[in-house]
Amino acid sequence: MSGGIVVVGLGPGNPDQMTPEARDALAEASDFFGYAPYLDRLELAPGQRRHASDNREELSRAGAALEMAASGRSVAVVSGGDAGVFAMAAAVCEAIETGPAAWREVEFRVVPGVTAMLAVAARTGAPLGHDCCAMSLSDNLKPWDLIEARLRAAAGAGFVLAFYNPVSRARPWQLGRAFEILREILPAATPVIFGRAAGRPDERMTITTLREARSDQADMATCVIVGSPETRVIARGGRPPLVYSPRSAGRRTR
Amino acid sequence: MSGGIVVVGLGPGNPDQMTPEARDALAEASDFFGYAPYLDRLELAPGQRRHASDNREELSRAGAALEMAASGRSVAVVSGGDAGVFAMAAAVCEAIETGPAAWREVEFRVVPGVTAMLAVAARTGAPLGHDCCAMSLSDNLKPWDLIEARLRAAAGAGFVLAFYNPVSRARPWQLGRAFEILREILPAATPVIFGRAAGRPDERMTITTLREARSDQADMATCVIVGSPETRVIARGGRPPLVYSPRSAGRRTR
Repeated sequence: MSGGIVVVGLGPGNPDQMTPEARDALAEASDFFGYAPYLDRLELAPGQRRHASDNREELSRAGAALEMAASGRSVAVVSGGDAGVFAMAAAVCEAIETGPAAWREVEFRVVPGVTAMLAVAARTGAPLGHDCCAMSLSDNLKPWDLIEARLRAAAGAGFVLAFYNPVSRARPWQLGRAFEILREILPAATPVIFGRAAGRPDERMTITTLREARSDQADMATCVIVGSPETRVIARGGRPPLVYSPRSAGRRTR
Repeated sequence: MSGGIVVVGLGPGNPDQMTPEARDALAEASDFFGYAPYLDRLELAPGQRRHASDNREELSRAGAALEMAASGRSVAVVSGGDAGVFAMAAAVCEAIETGPAAWREVEFRVVPGVTAMLAVAARTGAPLGHDCCAMSLSDNLKPWDLIEARLRAAAGAGFVLAFYNPVSRARPWQLGRAFEILREILPAATPVIFGRAAGRPDERMTITTLREARSDQADMATCVIVGSPETRVIARGGRPPLVYSPRSAGRRTR
């Protein structure tokens, strides 16, 4: 049997939000690579082998997975959410490009999933209802100046913003600085959503404003959505408010 | 029984890419609202009623669905891809905000799905591997000047771009104009993907460059992804090339 590698997006965490395509791809694999908390979500069958690694080790994990696939094993590399949004598909591609020529011959497939910003948006209304950006706030792999420039460009042009990797123990100030920058550009009343663990038992959705938003409202499991100047909040008696970004923009008549 | 409304993202079109949560939500509904081609994907049970409407009728469709839900029916409103990305969740929120007060009391839920750009990205590698924007190129609901400004801001800041609604019979020139603008900003060799009907039997993925890209390579079922200056193409002997956007950016050492 010839091996191969499949990079699988597990979805936000609720098993009902993982696609049948992902489930089937996992059933067919012999070896599982990923960040330990994602592997913990899987119920492996006897004979399926687990190769956990820490986060921030994506490239070495990708190389180990490719080496095993090249040796003839059926390898699954798992990511939370979607495999292609701040996740392992890009790391595996990078390893293919920079690794041994034989790795280009390995069968390679990506199985998409529901990425965090979509799950958070669904739980709060339709905040991504118009043009939007997904950004990582981590400056581990890009300079902070570039992140600031992108924040200013995207917010200034009216995009809704979704932040991945908003904070971590090693990156305590970046989200607060991002809010400072955005307060220079956007109205203070702009809606901000802290969407933690969407779809999981410990889910917590917080809707606030840019004026009130504090970085300690986020942790590593949080996706932060910052509205555009057109994003609206609908109060509902007895039900949580809804946040949405209208389909129309720029004050054109509908 | 008290009614309610659920807005469901069906995924890109391959049934294996629809989540179990979406499938279960559809099974529980009595009345189905949506654009006819999306409703055509469903196998309704006896007693489940179909209310098809044309596209560009989103707001009146949302109102009709809410009215029926307020009358006590269990209503599903369906969208292709994800329900919150250029889809029906925002239209239903808009109808709730502007409609009768009773509509705010209706139970409302959104079920997320795999949106087109994720499915297209998965079929071609990891082009959305870093900061990215999703934009609608339709100027039906926003002025073209605003679209141009967003194109310039996002491309200039190094975001990967994903275009929804790139062309239609009524909007023949917008995508070509977008490519012209981007050629002023991005290298001519920037990868461009025309991802048509990802995951469906008539899927067609075309990888080209900004220099070569032509608007007649897209139709209404196409999601177009334009890379950033850092997006790369990996040639592979005997296999299709891979497109990916590296996790690191701005030439920082890794």
